Amino acid sequence: MTTAHAYAAQSATTPLAPFTFERRAPAARDVAIDILYCGVCHSDLHTARSEWGPAAYPCVPGHEIVGRVHAVGSEVSKFKVGDLVGVGCMVDSCQHCQPCKDGLEQYCDNGMTGTYDSQEQVSRVNTLGGYSDHIVVFEKFVLKISHDEKQLAAVAPLLCAGITTYSPLRQWKAGPGMKVGVVGLGGLGHMGVKIAAAMGAHVVLFTTSPGKSEDARRLGAKEVVVSRNESEMAVHRNSFDLIINTVAVSHNLDPFVQLLKLDGTLVLVGAPGTPHPSPGVFGLITKRRRIAGSMIGGIAETQEMLDFCAAHGIVSDIETIAMPKINEAYERMLKSDVKYRFVIDMATVQG
Amino acid sequence: MTTAHAYAAQSATTPLAPFTFERRAPAARDVAIDILYCGVCHSDLHTARSEWGPAAYPCVPGHEIVGRVHAVGSEVSKFKVGDLVGVGCMVDSCQHCQPCKDGLEQYCDNGMTGTYDSQEQVSRVNTLGGYSDHIVVFEKFVLKISHDEKQLAAVAPLLCAGITTYSPLRQWKAGPGMKVGVVGLGGLGHMGVKIAAAMGAHVVLFTTSPGKSEDARRLGAKEVVVSRNESEMAVHRNSFDLIINTVAVSHNLDPFVQLLKLDGTLVLVGAPGTPHPSPGVFGLITKRRRIAGSMIGGIAETQEMLDFCAAHGIVSDIETIAMPKINEAYERMLKSDVKYRFVIDMATVQG
Repeated sequence: MTTAHAYAAQSATTPLAPFTFERRAPAARDVAIDILYCGVCHSDLHTARSEWGPAAYPCVPGHEIVGRVHAVGSEVSKFKVGDLVGVGCMVDSCQHCQPCKDGLEQYCDNGMTGTYDSQEQVSRVNTLGGYSDHIVVFEKFVLKISHDEKQLAAVAPLLCAGITTYSPLRQWKAGPGMKVGVVGLGGLGHMGVKIAAAMGAHVVLFTTSPGKSEDARRLGAKEVVVSRNESEMAVHRNSFDLIINTVAVSHNLDPFVQLLKLDGTLVLVGAPGTPHPSPGVFGLITKRRRIAGSMIGGIAETQEMLDFCAAHGIVSDIETIAMPKINEAYERMLKSDVKYRFVIDMATVQG
Repeated sequence: MTTAHAYAAQSATTPLAPFTFERRAPAARDVAIDILYCGVCHSDLHTARSEWGPAAYPCVPGHEIVGRVHAVGSEVSKFKVGDLVGVGCMVDSCQHCQPCKDGLEQYCDNGMTGTYDSQEQVSRVNTLGGYSDHIVVFEKFVLKISHDEKQLAAVAPLLCAGITTYSPLRQWKAGPGMKVGVVGLGGLGHMGVKIAAAMGAHVVLFTTSPGKSEDARRLGAKEVVVSRNESEMAVHRNSFDLIINTVAVSHNLDPFVQLLKLDGTLVLVGAPGTPHPSPGVFGLITKRRRIAGSMIGGIAETQEMLDFCAAHGIVSDIETIAMPKINEAYERMLKSDVKYRFVIDMATVQG
């Protein structure tokens, strides 16, 4: 056992504060990782505040983890001490259901083990996440990082925001000749724009903030549409193959459904605390349109995404913060006052 | 011009009553058809009563038309006088957009011409449907019927209820090894069960009426689930490849979404007057599930469906009525008091 220095919420209504706990000693197939940086995801805040249902406390959030291998178990062959590695939203799954066999561990029939506020597969112990100085993870759920070490902080958000947008773009075959929309220019949306553009799609960014236009183009969008402007929206009716909707607050989906062409799909990757207004059935029926959901990605696909991003020079646009600033960062995140992801420098966890 | 004897609604609130009007003389590529039978679809009632938006009056409903060719235009090669033919929900479309080129006329970018309460492509004249003794239709939208003539009345509902369920079953590849649900055992649902079973799928019928179980099995369902029974529903969680939802009244979709396996699709073919309650986003995201819409089928696919049904001995289960009984039939249809489709014997249109 090793003592981890972390930040935790002790209840749904208390701010995150310093906390120490014991990590398990690495088992034969475990990798022990010194955490260098951890991204700050909306899910962290939703969970810490029990907004998606009651969380287990103390709650240590964080699932955009990058760091360096500190030790490996006796049977670990994929990693060695000193390797740069990442850990995303999962640290385990049942390993024997069909989705697990198919490399879709995020859809494990028996319930994947999330990196925090989840249960270990056998012990059912509550998991504690990346807002901590080290973590011990089953090697199968550890990712190799081939980006330059200087980019490491900006790689962290790829582990959740990156794969959450990459996976549906791959699943629905984004590429040259396809018109792809991305709704919302936040942590997820800015990654969606970069990745879809790198895949060769014609990318259109939808935002409610006219001021984001220039930035969206810099990130790779060919067009920017202010979604509250009906005439701007009307120009794009029936024209999209795919729209990735990253917005995690309740909003009317129909204006986006209307932009899909025949057989087009609107993929929801943001999960609002209260449901969206009900989408109209006629909008779906009259063009055989589809609304789908997608959740992060499997381990093999996450590695593919990291390698794709390294090859295309893609990282997240980030603002690095010290660990004690996390509660302030949450408040700014709620106001969308970040371009586009906070990343905690874990060297600051002990203040 | 020829005088057609029909039944029409003169307003949203008046019952259907006898009405005469002029049909155009057949042009070079037109087929003139003596209507022998016309099925009664929920859409007829919704439209006659302006429940889907304001209809044009007088309104002559009817788009499940079967009859015999009475005359053909000079350039018609596909049909000859005396042929048994059908006409479904469309009588024309633009013929030059991509969906039309792809044989998906129902999704015509410029708006298909419905068989009633729609506009002809050039003249923009309001179309009048199958509750009439004859009709003149562009040959491309006329279907060949190869069923035995004695089955003709029971073939009529295939033109809407049949193709509306056949098309999504084909689109989402229903067949051996697939578990397919059909929600609702009405005009559409009973066709969906028959067709999905003939395609080789394992068919499960969902109903709110426990009394329909025996009939559903007779039609081809392997299992029947009372959808209000939570424990019966729970047995099927995460197990369906495809669910065709034929229910045209607002209801909670989430219990059906939860039954889909990874990448499964819930296809809506019924269009309720008021929206369904909003489907939960987590239900979609956690299994990459999809909700889609589907509307009738293209002309080539409708012909394929008719040939498939003839080859498999499939017709609709019907109750034949005389034209003057149409208003009574509407009231019974609203109470689901029909097994499973009313079909008008058009010999009775002149009373």
